[in-house]
Amino acid sequence: MIIIAERINGMFKDVKQAIADKDKKVVQDLAKKQTEAGASYLDVNVGTASADQEGTMQWLVETIQETCSTPLCLDSQKPNVIAAGLKSVKAGAAVMLNSTPLNKKSDEQVLDKYIEMAEQAGPKASIIALTMDKNGVPQDIDTRVAIAAEIVQKAMEKGFDTQRLFIDPIILPVKVPGAQVQPGNIMAAMDQIRYLADPAPHMTIGLSNLSQGATERSLINRTFLAMAVSHGLDSAIIDVLDEKLMNVLATAELLMNKQIYSDSYLRAYSPANK
Amino acid sequence: MIIIAERINGMFKDVKQAIADKDKKVVQDLAKKQTEAGASYLDVNVGTASADQEGTMQWLVETIQETCSTPLCLDSQKPNVIAAGLKSVKAGAAVMLNSTPLNKKSDEQVLDKYIEMAEQAGPKASIIALTMDKNGVPQDIDTRVAIAAEIVQKAMEKGFDTQRLFIDPIILPVKVPGAQVQPGNIMAAMDQIRYLADPAPHMTIGLSNLSQGATERSLINRTFLAMAVSHGLDSAIIDVLDEKLMNVLATAELLMNKQIYSDSYLRAYSPANK
Repeated sequence: MIIIAERINGMFKDVKQAIADKDKKVVQDLAKKQTEAGASYLDVNVGTASADQEGTMQWLVETIQETCSTPLCLDSQKPNVIAAGLKSVKAGAAVMLNSTPLNKKSDEQVLDKYIEMAEQAGPKASIIALTMDKNGVPQDIDTRVAIAAEIVQKAMEKGFDTQRLFIDPIILPVKVPGAQVQPGNIMAAMDQIRYLADPAPHMTIGLSNLSQGATERSLINRTFLAMAVSHGLDSAIIDVLDEKLMNVLATAELLMNKQIYSDSYLRAYSPANK
Repeated sequence: MIIIAERINGMFKDVKQAIADKDKKVVQDLAKKQTEAGASYLDVNVGTASADQEGTMQWLVETIQETCSTPLCLDSQKPNVIAAGLKSVKAGAAVMLNSTPLNKKSDEQVLDKYIEMAEQAGPKASIIALTMDKNGVPQDIDTRVAIAAEIVQKAMEKGFDTQRLFIDPIILPVKVPGAQVQPGNIMAAMDQIRYLADPAPHMTIGLSNLSQGATERSLINRTFLAMAVSHGLDSAIIDVLDEKLMNVLATAELLMNKQIYSDSYLRAYSPANK
């Protein structure tokens, strides 16, 4: 499981304040704590605290790299913000570019840009591509799969290894009226997406979005995570500091034969090695 | 979700002792507690406490029916023990016959017997059939599906409604060396079994067997239950007194759009009505 830790995000109050104050300690503490909790990557999202998104992304990247070498997942829909972050990422380091739709209403070929930036960033750079296009986020299974197929095809045409491609089928909040059919649709889509290429593209989700505004957020998150792992999900952007969630993840990996059983399997679980 | 509560089973010490002492209170308390916790059916298994399995089954059935009207799931591999229990089940009541393999090494047509007994017990009687035949319990996906197909075919030939048929693909303890591939195989088999007939046969599992001898029993059980529900499991023999398990089940049903979201969905969950 490739685990992307979600907390260094300017949408969280503490990080927003830290960005405003240029307070390195808050960011570095989160980087260390999330790494210890099992993060394979640390998501880095500038949020809305600063008008200078490029400068903020660079500051966050540099601040984190001062204290730990966990690979980063640069999180922005804006290619220029990703590009700014990449300038500060240590040469040759693993890095993720998060995220791009297939295309935009403006006809801007944004997937192409992300692939190009990843190629320039070296062989350890990968991208997260959303099953979303100029028409927006699809609600049904077939359109999600069709967009994923186009993403995979485009990557192949450009000679971009599908193992460097993470497809995100976009999970919506279960609390939104009418959205309750979505978790099932996401899993049905994943059942097909994993066969789009050989080797298969990775699949990831921004898990916490599922429980936005709901009670029982952790319970909803971890129940869906277990389900999704059984449908081929092999990466997720999650709250690694949620111990119950991490225990379910370890157990889901055990049940999918990705980890050997021992009486101490929870303590032995090391997601970064899977 | 059709929930079969597992605790009235002579393999548990308290029930074994109650059977030996003819102590109705222990059995009746379990019947009431499990019903309040959401049981659709109460499993009734005589265990090994008494040489007189038929008499014990009848005593258990009568003892439970004195105190509550929750449908019973008569649990024995021996047709004569099931038949004895059926004599005491109130006429016309819903009842489950748990369980029969497809066939036995002795060539005894045991599935036929269970279907006949269910037919005689009335239109609300159903059977649990194991994906197991004279060669034993299969470990792979294809043999499980093939046996399930034979079971469904036999039911159809006999005019037995597939909606009265519960297929149990037999979950093995994850702690057994080599068995870790089994949870994945079970789910892959379920992905196919649910398309064997229209309307589909039900699918059920004896969940607690999965965590036999393991640490973190409840965590393993509930993580797999969430996964299995996303692969079409619509019934399970479980410990309904495990509140964490029941909360995961409510959440899994929510995520599969079998329950409407409300902030109080956990309290609102009523499995017997699903």
